[in-house]
Amino acid sequence: MAAKKTAPKKSAPSTPSASSASKRSDRDALTLGKIEKLARQALAQATKGGNPALDIRTRTLSNVSFNEKKRIIELGDRTQSREFFNVAMARKFMQTMLVASGCKTLIGEDKTVSIRQMFYMTKHTLPGSSENTFDDQSESDPIIEDLEVGIDALREELHLFANRRGLVVGKLVVNDAGDEIDLARMGRGGWGIPSICEPGHLAFVRNAAEFILLVEKQAVWHRLNEDRFWEKHNCILLTSEGQAARGARRLLQRMATELKLPIYVLVDNDPWGLYIYSVLKQGSINLAYESMRMAVPNVRFLGMSAFDYKKFAMPPAAEIKLTKEDITRAEQMKAYPWFKDAKWQREIQATIDNGFKMEVDALLTKRISFITDEYIPKKLRDRDYLQ
Amino acid sequence: MAAKKTAPKKSAPSTPSASSASKRSDRDALTLGKIEKLARQALAQATKGGNPALDIRTRTLSNVSFNEKKRIIELGDRTQSREFFNVAMARKFMQTMLVASGCKTLIGEDKTVSIRQMFYMTKHTLPGSSENTFDDQSESDPIIEDLEVGIDALREELHLFANRRGLVVGKLVVNDAGDEIDLARMGRGGWGIPSICEPGHLAFVRNAAEFILLVEKQAVWHRLNEDRFWEKHNCILLTSEGQAARGARRLLQRMATELKLPIYVLVDNDPWGLYIYSVLKQGSINLAYESMRMAVPNVRFLGMSAFDYKKFAMPPAAEIKLTKEDITRAEQMKAYPWFKDAKWQREIQATIDNGFKMEVDALLTKRISFITDEYIPKKLRDRDYLQ
Repeated sequence: MAAKKTAPKKSAPSTPSASSASKRSDRDALTLGKIEKLARQALAQATKGGNPALDIRTRTLSNVSFNEKKRIIELGDRTQSREFFNVAMARKFMQTMLVASGCKTLIGEDKTVSIRQMFYMTKHTLPGSSENTFDDQSESDPIIEDLEVGIDALREELHLFANRRGLVVGKLVVNDAGDEIDLARMGRGGWGIPSICEPGHLAFVRNAAEFILLVEKQAVWHRLNEDRFWEKHNCILLTSEGQAARGARRLLQRMATELKLPIYVLVDNDPWGLYIYSVLKQGSINLAYESMRMAVPNVRFLGMSAFDYKKFAMPPAAEIKLTKEDITRAEQMKAYPWFKDAKWQREIQATIDNGFKMEVDALLTKRISFITDEYIPKKLRDRDYLQ
Repeated sequence: MAAKKTAPKKSAPSTPSASSASKRSDRDALTLGKIEKLARQALAQATKGGNPALDIRTRTLSNVSFNEKKRIIELGDRTQSREFFNVAMARKFMQTMLVASGCKTLIGEDKTVSIRQMFYMTKHTLPGSSENTFDDQSESDPIIEDLEVGIDALREELHLFANRRGLVVGKLVVNDAGDEIDLARMGRGGWGIPSICEPGHLAFVRNAAEFILLVEKQAVWHRLNEDRFWEKHNCILLTSEGQAARGARRLLQRMATELKLPIYVLVDNDPWGLYIYSVLKQGSINLAYESMRMAVPNVRFLGMSAFDYKKFAMPPAAEIKLTKEDITRAEQMKAYPWFKDAKWQREIQATIDNGFKMEVDALLTKRISFITDEYIPKKLRDRDYLQ
């Protein structure tokens, strides 16, 4: 087993829900402080007769770079000022204050809402006019991102969330909203990964897992769960159900740092699978300002590798011809600084040379549980992964 | 409370997992029998020197009708013969036998796979040719539907599933794959509704709920779950996460018939929301052959109704202007035989007359928990729903 052995953690003697709640209120106090500071600064400038302004780091491609040392995609320091007494900026200034105020209410009431619900919370028609504070969610979403960057708080800390996705089972007991949940007793259903996996909301109670396996596809997760892979191999089994949602990414990062478990990722052998892995690992350009708290630079790429076709003597039925778009995407991948290492160049080139892609599901061309009792165990045993 | 009171059911003294397993093997034996009968008939015809053939009910619009008495959309009796010695049909005949054989293997090994995985299980290149048994999943999916109709077995009984969606919490204990799962202790995560919710796979152990509330949107479910609505109102809280997947529909139907609980559905006030409700209630044209086991004719439409705007004094911020497409879709809805009743005509017309649609999320324009402590309780109290 390639996984590092970790002693199971015992639960603390204090009740986890109480400690959860106090951790949450600490963090909430911190976030509230940031929101209030923002408001106080604007007010101070206004009462001095000045021009209230916010400095927000620019979220454009030119302000994003790959930090070679930390191995994550980061947002640079260039900022943009947003002034109240400026026709082009006044609307956004007002909107930022509205969203900040909405978040303050949420924290005060200890509630969380979706970013669409925040749009409705802050949308209204300005008295004596037909002007709406927001016309569309496409206006409020960037304001939320501005606020996150502006006061350096994750949207989850602002009690906001986007749509969730992902399921988990395995040898871990968590506490969420006061419920102690044994992820080893979830049947075939699995526990839905919440949108907000911040400390204080979600706590790890007892861990008996030695590693984490994340698979891209729901049906692959089902196959492994039905075969009780996580029981036999003492692990935690997650599916991101495609590109990982923020909740799943935060959960993964917290597991990596707090439980100190190695993480293996199993995606389809195609450029999209590699992209899913890459976002887990170093973050994305869109969310560069949050890589620090979302990226997990040491996740391991278990497969599917382009070399698995020969290694596991796959039949031609496993092949799906590459499209022109796949090849273009693969060439783009090769140019990314985080894939410049020879081993990655070799891996990506091998897919192009194969001329075909392969889905993890294609392992069923061998037999139903080949993935569970042969493919993954062999990859782990041989330490056959990239990082 | 509009919900009918139901005494909590006590768990049977026998261990649920054992009884689950025996129920499953009974049902599996039945399905195996159907597959074997199909194979034996084909073999008998072939050994007699005849032309092996399958009669399969036609799944076309012209063979689908609304059964006024049962209140479900049904498949008619017109059939189509599929012959082995017929150039146009031989390939499909062979494919049907391959899928049937794959399902026999699945049942034998007591495993379940996705319809994509079944594609891979049965895809191979015919020896001595470059001919594939299946070129694409778009070839195998209709064959699976043929088999379902041909031998009268749900795909779940054939151990196959499509993608799953949906989460559940509430006052119910279930047993799934031998794990006893208390849906009242799921934190904010909820239990992921499995793809296969057939008896034998999933059993109800103890129910303390008085009704079921299904909401279309994940974020609405989150709002109600965070507010512990299901605890205060003794119910089961489900989200279908959009159009309900087969697992969620089967779970709902089993809850309706076995737990005898009334079901309330809360969707957006737009034609798409009404369509989601309508599929839950009388089935869909595409899956007409499965309405009997999937449709729940007595689900109640709790909202959002077009009349809720005035009833709850909603602000203009809750409105979203109807598009031309919305209006066309609403007019189509009015023409459906299952919506011909005056109360439905009035409801659909009211949306058209309003000129706007409303999302359930729009209730947050009032206040964060308006939906939990005012909107739903009032609707239930006033028995303000359509059926």
